[in-house]
Amino acid sequence: MNNERINRLQEAMARAGIGHAFIANGPDMFYLIGYATLPLERITALSIPAEGDAVLFVPRLEAPRVPEGTVEVVPWDELDDPIAMMAERCRGEDTLAIGDHMWSVFLIRLLEKVGSPRLIPASEVTRKLREVKDETEIDALRRAAAGVDRVLARIPREVRFAGRTEKEVAADITRMILEEGHDEAGFAIVASGPNSASPHHEPGDRVIQPGDAVVCDFGGSVDGYFSDVTRTFSVGEPSAKLVEVHSVVHAAGTAARDAVRPGVACQDIDRVARRIIEDAGYGEWFIHRTGHGIGVEVHEHPYIVEGNDAPLARGNAFSVEPGIYLPGELGVRIEDIVVCGEDGPDTLNQATRDLMVVE
Amino acid sequence: MNNERINRLQEAMARAGIGHAFIANGPDMFYLIGYATLPLERITALSIPAEGDAVLFVPRLEAPRVPEGTVEVVPWDELDDPIAMMAERCRGEDTLAIGDHMWSVFLIRLLEKVGSPRLIPASEVTRKLREVKDETEIDALRRAAAGVDRVLARIPREVRFAGRTEKEVAADITRMILEEGHDEAGFAIVASGPNSASPHHEPGDRVIQPGDAVVCDFGGSVDGYFSDVTRTFSVGEPSAKLVEVHSVVHAAGTAARDAVRPGVACQDIDRVARRIIEDAGYGEWFIHRTGHGIGVEVHEHPYIVEGNDAPLARGNAFSVEPGIYLPGELGVRIEDIVVCGEDGPDTLNQATRDLMVVE
Repeated sequence: MNNERINRLQEAMARAGIGHAFIANGPDMFYLIGYATLPLERITALSIPAEGDAVLFVPRLEAPRVPEGTVEVVPWDELDDPIAMMAERCRGEDTLAIGDHMWSVFLIRLLEKVGSPRLIPASEVTRKLREVKDETEIDALRRAAAGVDRVLARIPREVRFAGRTEKEVAADITRMILEEGHDEAGFAIVASGPNSASPHHEPGDRVIQPGDAVVCDFGGSVDGYFSDVTRTFSVGEPSAKLVEVHSVVHAAGTAARDAVRPGVACQDIDRVARRIIEDAGYGEWFIHRTGHGIGVEVHEHPYIVEGNDAPLARGNAFSVEPGIYLPGELGVRIEDIVVCGEDGPDTLNQATRDLMVVE
Repeated sequence: MNNERINRLQEAMARAGIGHAFIANGPDMFYLIGYATLPLERITALSIPAEGDAVLFVPRLEAPRVPEGTVEVVPWDELDDPIAMMAERCRGEDTLAIGDHMWSVFLIRLLEKVGSPRLIPASEVTRKLREVKDETEIDALRRAAAGVDRVLARIPREVRFAGRTEKEVAADITRMILEEGHDEAGFAIVASGPNSASPHHEPGDRVIQPGDAVVCDFGGSVDGYFSDVTRTFSVGEPSAKLVEVHSVVHAAGTAARDAVRPGVACQDIDRVARRIIEDAGYGEWFIHRTGHGIGVEVHEHPYIVEGNDAPLARGNAFSVEPGIYLPGELGVRIEDIVVCGEDGPDTLNQATRDLMVVE
């Protein structure tokens, strides 16, 4: 069967000297054949030689789920050894690409059967395909971004913060993500008061107070493509400190997005944001990179981080999300998804970046 | 810091000749230290020597999330190389245990730094701990089972099937799982009519018809411990065929559960169920094992499958879920969670196993 993405991967494998690739259930598999399943102990894996036909090993009881027409399906039965079937496919190859997300237990079992091949994370070849989004992919990302933008518009009107727990607010947001057209609600961080200084805070039982800063970072997927947006809210009138920190983060994000165009190094986008925050005296408290690629995975290449000197290319899609986190006090983050267009940034999120006051 | 589960793991590692274990984010980590986070590109990993202190490598921006007091936390900064920090911890060890779910990309990067150690899936040592549930764990499993039992009781009263899509019914069940006290709704299979013959069917846009068999298989987690239950419904009066197939599956499940006691081999539970289905002439259509362990993971050891001659022990918790799948026609599965008690089975699910008629 002909699959253009697999064909392009095979070309990249041949150029990289990779004899065979095994891609287990996960974003690479979804990108290549549009199929995903729960990651469980029964392996589902694409077996792709540099030349020749790819096959999909799939547990017999899940074979009816696989959409027809994208790849040849080889079901394995409950008492078969699918790892032995995979080993047979790559016999004699000295360089294997292994899907980044494949569980180590499967790789270890494979190595027991095939000796000591050179191992390459499959992302080294798949990232080149996935990093550059085509129009259909950008359209899905745009619809996902529009969905979470609608959630953001509803939050000040519909969600009460003061007197409720972070968990309760997160549950409201999760429900609205689905109501606004997402197929899956992926995550909802609600970090209030001092918790807002913890970038990946898990929403908990803290009761939100008047005067809190609240960082809301959430997203999910539409047709397999992710949204990911962050805004910071003030519960009642904001303190002078919150207004100041918010304005610095706002300026950093705006400047970083404006710097996006083909040929600019990823790390330069990070530097633009970081410089503004450093100049305002908060450099020590911007404790993460400026962004991450987004697509069939919520975090993927390219990463907008110091040390990544790869140039941006048309069709790259990534977050720009500077933040300042003052331990024990407050945190602010503003995150938007940007596509690198031919002449500059195409910012997918359109929701206001002003500090929104909620009750 | 003293952690009794880590101490027991270290004893097992020493007996197995394992010098160091790396357990990334996932069920083993949750079991050992009660911490879980989203599996993303920034690695979180427990580093456990056979002797000495364990540490948890955590991305700096997630360090505030880690509960205090279970293990020493070593945050890594955005521009650090956490894999190099891990490699430093295991220098000179020739046998490493790697958590089953660790992403292969992390293992490959680690191997680039540590050469060619002998690799052992960590489950070979962790399973011995996790397979035997203590009273606190059994209590959590019992509360999870009671939650999905309440969902099952509500379904015939509250959920309309005929004229609605599988997806819509699955969304109702997902909502009820949360309403009935689960922290997370893990999955909801709704497989109707001919789709019921696909054991892991993904709920789709098929509109459910009068006369359909509908397999509903769902669960989630309570305090990190999973539920997993399946019942088969008839939309309106069941056909004679559905009644017959259902009665065979019912008998197989009952006999298999009744056979549970310490010392009986796992595969013997499978054989009891399979024999009844074979004797009724449906052996060819029971296309999966009889069950799987359950705990902090929805599928874990011990597996109730031919070839597993390990004896059941008191405190093992697992599903008993025979099924018959007639392609293009109908499928039936009945699943219960059973704990192996001192003298016999302790079946956690109490919902009726009769063929329930829904509208």
